[in-house]
Amino acid sequence: MERPVISFLTDFGPDGPAAICRGVMLGIARDAQIVDIGHHVRKYAIRDGAFLLWCSVPYLPIGVHVAVVDPGVGTDRRPIAIRTGRGDHLVGPDNGLLIPAARRLGGIAAAHLLENRDYMLAATSSTFHGRDIFAPVGAHLAIGRPIESLGPAVDAAALVDLRFPEPTVRSGELETAVLFVDDFGNVRLGGEPADLTAALGDLRPGARIELEFDGGPSAVREATTWQRTFGGVAPGESLLYEDSFGLVSLADNQGNAAERLGLAADRPVRIRAA
Amino acid sequence: MERPVISFLTDFGPDGPAAICRGVMLGIARDAQIVDIGHHVRKYAIRDGAFLLWCSVPYLPIGVHVAVVDPGVGTDRRPIAIRTGRGDHLVGPDNGLLIPAARRLGGIAAAHLLENRDYMLAATSSTFHGRDIFAPVGAHLAIGRPIESLGPAVDAAALVDLRFPEPTVRSGELETAVLFVDDFGNVRLGGEPADLTAALGDLRPGARIELEFDGGPSAVREATTWQRTFGGVAPGESLLYEDSFGLVSLADNQGNAAERLGLAADRPVRIRAA
Amino acid sequence: MERPVISFLTDFGPDGPAAICRGVMLGIARDAQIVDIGHHVRKYAIRDGAFLLWCSVPYLPIGVHVAVVDPGVGTDRRPIAIRTGRGDHLVGPDNGLLIPAARRLGGIAAAHLLENRDYMLAATSSTFHGRDIFAPVGAHLAIGRPIESLGPAVDAAALVDLRFPEPTVRSGELETAVLFVDDFGNVRLGGEPADLTAALGDLRPGARIELEFDGGPSAVREATTWQRTFGGVAPGESLLYEDSFGLVSLADNQGNAAERLGLAADRPVRIRAA
Repeated sequence: MERPVISFLTDFGPDGPAAICRGVMLGIARDAQIVDIGHHVRKYAIRDGAFLLWCSVPYLPIGVHVAVVDPGVGTDRRPIAIRTGRGDHLVGPDNGLLIPAARRLGGIAAAHLLENRDYMLAATSSTFHGRDIFAPVGAHLAIGRPIESLGPAVDAAALVDLRFPEPTVRSGELETAVLFVDDFGNVRLGGEPADLTAALGDLRPGARIELEFDGGPSAVREATTWQRTFGGVAPGESLLYEDSFGLVSLADNQGNAAERLGLAADRPVRIRAA
Repeated sequence: MERPVISFLTDFGPDGPAAICRGVMLGIARDAQIVDIGHHVRKYAIRDGAFLLWCSVPYLPIGVHVAVVDPGVGTDRRPIAIRTGRGDHLVGPDNGLLIPAARRLGGIAAAHLLENRDYMLAATSSTFHGRDIFAPVGAHLAIGRPIESLGPAVDAAALVDLRFPEPTVRSGELETAVLFVDDFGNVRLGGEPADLTAALGDLRPGARIELEFDGGPSAVREATTWQRTFGGVAPGESLLYEDSFGLVSLADNQGNAAERLGLAADRPVRIRAA
Repeated sequence: MERPVISFLTDFGPDGPAAICRGVMLGIARDAQIVDIGHHVRKYAIRDGAFLLWCSVPYLPIGVHVAVVDPGVGTDRRPIAIRTGRGDHLVGPDNGLLIPAARRLGGIAAAHLLENRDYMLAATSSTFHGRDIFAPVGAHLAIGRPIESLGPAVDAAALVDLRFPEPTVRSGELETAVLFVDDFGNVRLGGEPADLTAALGDLRPGARIELEFDGGPSAVREATTWQRTFGGVAPGESLLYEDSFGLVSLADNQGNAAERLGLAADRPVRIRAA
């Protein structure tokens, strides 16, 4: 049998808790390949986690994806597992974290509440469901336990939803918001090149673009150009480009655009031809 | 045969040296599942490492646990391996790092000095025993070499001990100290809820508590409440709770209590009803 | 068959992109042992990446080493694979990153351009060749595809070279530069103890040494001693020593020398007896 793959995403930080969860997984699924998607998600930032999961899952083998960004741990938010159209399982809190990834993997084929205590640790704490519930349930799914055995089915429409910022196309202007700032300081925006083209017309490399970020202490204006890749501009200069996930992004070639401009997630932006 | 598990904890940071040790392990035990407990331990902070190891090992499969926080590398501090009552092996420096974990895994069943050079790299440096001694010895244990072959037995009582801060129960007051600050800024204290109850009487969720942290430039006072989980208070408010390892802890719901209050390991604290 | 080892080094940061590459690798080579050498390489710092790779590869099993520090992604810099004298494969951009490691693994036995799209992802972006080219090619090599199948051979001498700073031996003075600052703040210099001895004569532990770092806003002078290991001096004091890779290094015992002195890679230094 092929070794099962369990991917794992949290905001736990790199040491200790994430390892404890990996230990729990291996106690149940000794042969699993655990792939850490990352544990440096901005603390409590459910949408950042949802974005990283959404980015990553299409490139992972079909498997189990355990994700825990869970400010509501120990409250009445529900623990869930989802089976996707592609055949993956997603495991985590019902707070929207899993939904964009599920949509990207063929949608929600089934969803179940995690209620069967046989698949949890014997003692479940009220502050560490990653260890006590999500890791063991994920590992049990990885070794072939059916999702139906975890608890009652729940209607996909009843799950907490989460959507990324969506662009508004106007004549001559695209309005959207910062979706995510990555480790390079590249600023991923809500929207695809097709949206930009719909608003601004065809874009050739070198086309001049102006961005205006509202909503902060003061507006931030950035004059840049549309490019195919970072090397299209000199080091230190900015560019707008289609990132490797199909999103419109702003970057500094060999620099950190988000830091230079003071940008963070959710900042609204208007994009125009210059 | 089941794949052996080797857990691995250091203060090396994430890049380079930890990978080199993993490489050395895999050269000897190609099939091992290596579980990184973490490599961001505060540099030279033996007790922080000991705490993370203590937290983690009960949740890991029985296996080999290699830990290296080793400010005395190259001096006359001794390299050791310990067999625990549960059947694990712990490998690292004799500076107390391994002892709390050993206690938690059924105690020290045997301890041996690492002297047999057959199980070390051919050339051993005086500054990187993780690579030259601890990683290869751990891997040799993982593939079944007996601990007796590593070097002479040493009496458990002769090993350097390490204890976590222990609480003093007074009437109406629990006196203890900060044991560890985690990645969320949650402040783990030395002591369990039973100690707190012994000092303050029964605690119900919502009970008002006062903490006074001495020993810094000025005393820090925090008025908080006893809670079952983070969601018992509004975001940004603090709570005292039983953490997922059974310790009394102070946290801010969706915030960073240690940063807000300027707290670090070893800070003394007195806890009273308010 | 033994499980293939794929080591992996990038400047991607810990979350997301590195995991995506691991996912791509496992989709092709499900049984691979992936060893993360590290993903915190200083952004765009090709030589830092080359140094970490050079440090690490001798301690890894013979396998595939994928490395991506790639400020030129999407430009005309070429993607390459190298077979080493030892039998490893190195995969990454032709910007010098792979060359010191190749030299250390027995030299370049063969080098090929990556042009065969059968071994890449179906859609290749212009900003994420780690995912689209290097990870899948590395995984294909790991499962045994011959390097010759990847694309045309290229002459080793035609590859972009990269050299570490080399010392100049003078009578009574060694002149070199900072090669790398590690996670402890230890300052690895270009040069070996033999170079130092050639310039200053035999060094015994405790010998007094003076370093003068030029090239910054103002010169930095450090009086220190030659030592065998950190514990040769009191905590907080500095020492010059042979590091575990055979380089002359400056460290503070249980401290951070680079931070204290404001040193970074490439800073020139002259070393004299004091």
